Amino acid sequence: MRLNLLPSAEAAVRLNSLAKNLTDYNIDIAVIDDNATKYYLTGQVFAGQIIVMAREPRMECFVRRPNHLEGKEVRHVRKPEEIPALLPAATLQSAKTVGFDFGVTDVATFNRLSSLFPSLTAVNSAAAIRATRAIKTPAEIDKIALSGRLQTEVYDQIPALFHPGMTDLQLQIEIERDLRLKGCLGQFRIAGNSMELFMASILAGDNADNPTPYDFAMGGAGIDPSLPVGANNTVITPGSTVMVDANGNFTGYMTDMTRTFACGPTDDQAMIAHQLSIDICDAVARAARPGKKASALYELAIEMVDRAGLRHFFMGHHQQAGFIGHGVGIEINEAPVIAPRSRDIIQEGNVIAVEPKFVIPGVGAVGIENTYVVEADHTRCLTLAPTELRQLG
Amino acid sequence: MRLNLLPSAEAAVRLNSLAKNLTDYNIDIAVIDDNATKYYLTGQVFAGQIIVMAREPRMECFVRRPNHLEGKEVRHVRKPEEIPALLPAATLQSAKTVGFDFGVTDVATFNRLSSLFPSLTAVNSAAAIRATRAIKTPAEIDKIALSGRLQTEVYDQIPALFHPGMTDLQLQIEIERDLRLKGCLGQFRIAGNSMELFMASILAGDNADNPTPYDFAMGGAGIDPSLPVGANNTVITPGSTVMVDANGNFTGYMTDMTRTFACGPTDDQAMIAHQLSIDICDAVARAARPGKKASALYELAIEMVDRAGLRHFFMGHHQQAGFIGHGVGIEINEAPVIAPRSRDIIQEGNVIAVEPKFVIPGVGAVGIENTYVVEADHTRCLTLAPTELRQLG
Repeated sequence: MRLNLLPSAEAAVRLNSLAKNLTDYNIDIAVIDDNATKYYLTGQVFAGQIIVMAREPRMECFVRRPNHLEGKEVRHVRKPEEIPALLPAATLQSAKTVGFDFGVTDVATFNRLSSLFPSLTAVNSAAAIRATRAIKTPAEIDKIALSGRLQTEVYDQIPALFHPGMTDLQLQIEIERDLRLKGCLGQFRIAGNSMELFMASILAGDNADNPTPYDFAMGGAGIDPSLPVGANNTVITPGSTVMVDANGNFTGYMTDMTRTFACGPTDDQAMIAHQLSIDICDAVARAARPGKKASALYELAIEMVDRAGLRHFFMGHHQQAGFIGHGVGIEINEAPVIAPRSRDIIQEGNVIAVEPKFVIPGVGAVGIENTYVVEADHTRCLTLAPTELRQLG
Repeated sequence: MRLNLLPSAEAAVRLNSLAKNLTDYNIDIAVIDDNATKYYLTGQVFAGQIIVMAREPRMECFVRRPNHLEGKEVRHVRKPEEIPALLPAATLQSAKTVGFDFGVTDVATFNRLSSLFPSLTAVNSAAAIRATRAIKTPAEIDKIALSGRLQTEVYDQIPALFHPGMTDLQLQIEIERDLRLKGCLGQFRIAGNSMELFMASILAGDNADNPTPYDFAMGGAGIDPSLPVGANNTVITPGSTVMVDANGNFTGYMTDMTRTFACGPTDDQAMIAHQLSIDICDAVARAARPGKKASALYELAIEMVDRAGLRHFFMGHHQQAGFIGHGVGIEINEAPVIAPRSRDIIQEGNVIAVEPKFVIPGVGAVGIENTYVVEADHTRCLTLAPTELRQLG
């Protein structure tokens, strides 16, 4: 079986993009050891390392397992200590730096792999990798768009999954099953170790205001202190809202979509806040043109919230999140970050999730989240379920 | 809300155990930054760090979020740079080393946190933490045993979830739903970044022989190259087997259980191999007494396999795994490791999953996996579903 499952032109585009970013950061050689970036470069996950020689540019895949992967850039090794002897001596001699993604490489692995290159200075390649993966190729955008269509089909069915007396968790379990039957892979990739979530955040009523340790936009107490986030066995009762933010990974690439559902009549302020969330998404999408500062998109949202006098309910109530959006692709927390101190600049090919959400005490969470791709002439929405507060049941 | 949810005597037992192991490794202060070990020490997950002062012993929890956690050992900080000034000067002055778990701490976090202690030598605390968490307290064993009972209830229902014509993935989705309805948290904690699995490995027929990049006992092609493991849409047909190894995390602590099901009449060699797996589990459990080398348990299994002439089918066929068991608790890959070169010694309080499995070409995977707790006078099985090859449907 071929290791590199990408068409060769596509593989070259991705390698060249990474090589250019590495070179911009003065990184001569990069060691790729994480599943997400291996998947980016080859369309497949394997155990082993990719060595990117940025100046040429070229890459070699050193595979520990599985043992049946083949290709001209593939070498099978039992351990990474075999790698240096298999690299071109001229490349190693002319190189000065070797990059590792410090954000996802554990210290033990870093110590082991960096010792293979004693003559090179080990540097952080995280920014170069992040910049590369932030600009999606058309083939990547196709995968993300397909995830968005499939996720939309599931979201369209959510009201029919509800029956009176259901808890948030019972509804979540039926949504999980529908996602899986539609092809959702389940795996929810988050770069770094600190954030954990299983399949979905479903927030009913005042559970939306329970704070979480994780850096998600919303909270929820969860059902166990080992995983304090999301649904907490709240019975869904009339007058409350149910916010659904569920796994959109159908293709190795994910979309991020939130929709809010109403159980019975809804409080006026919640209706106003929900419409404002839709309006903010529209405004941010219009403003998210190449060259725009990501921080300016955050400011745009905050101004709209302030004009409506809803700041105390924005991105949480007792505990508020400090961002309104983020890049999404193979992982849920890619660049750019839409936050006040973000230095990211919006670029063509960015795929961004925008999630201006509110928590209204006594009612629950309201608002939406859409995933958009920044194209040359406009910003296209990939998450297409109806945005209004739909009735459950 | 209290941060430390453990009864104070239980919290003290765990802290003292970790402090003793740290001291044995000459680690004076340990910085705990991963969710699994934070949960071990406090019964809760939060954003921030625990500082363990091993010589006293004492710990302080520095919490970034959530903002409502309280307790005498809790300090709220905006960033970890505030920590050193909040620690006792005498402790810092007398300390020489500060430990970080190199196996789970990323380089960026390590660089940031180790720079807070410029006068101390940063060392690897992974072995001390691993040794601590390998010995479960009675309260931890109760949680694991409860997971085992709930997981058993779900496994008992698996034959009733099957209908003819079903694929492996369709059966998996119904098992996932049953697990979740019974209280399974879903989250499947694996230390390190390299292994990924969503909820379950369900292997039908020859898909069991498809190799995976991950260090699991079994393989499977999966349904997408971004996650090449497990079910691959194989239709479950008469004459094949279906091996089910599904998530046992109901309490923050998990059990690991595998059972194999038959669709129609089963090949004689597969029946023999399945019974041998049961016999190996029984023999390993009897032999797994405190003081026994983990490697000797592996040798015991291999001898039984060799006597039966089934070595070519053991732990895979085209690609074979090099272990037959592992510790389990908060994470699925804890100590001890039951493998030929393991240096681990079985101890009272270990909880071990034993999974001698076979892949029979043309039939599928057979065998079982049980989770056992090593008690003073015997080794007790916590995964109680019937072990025989049960008929589906």
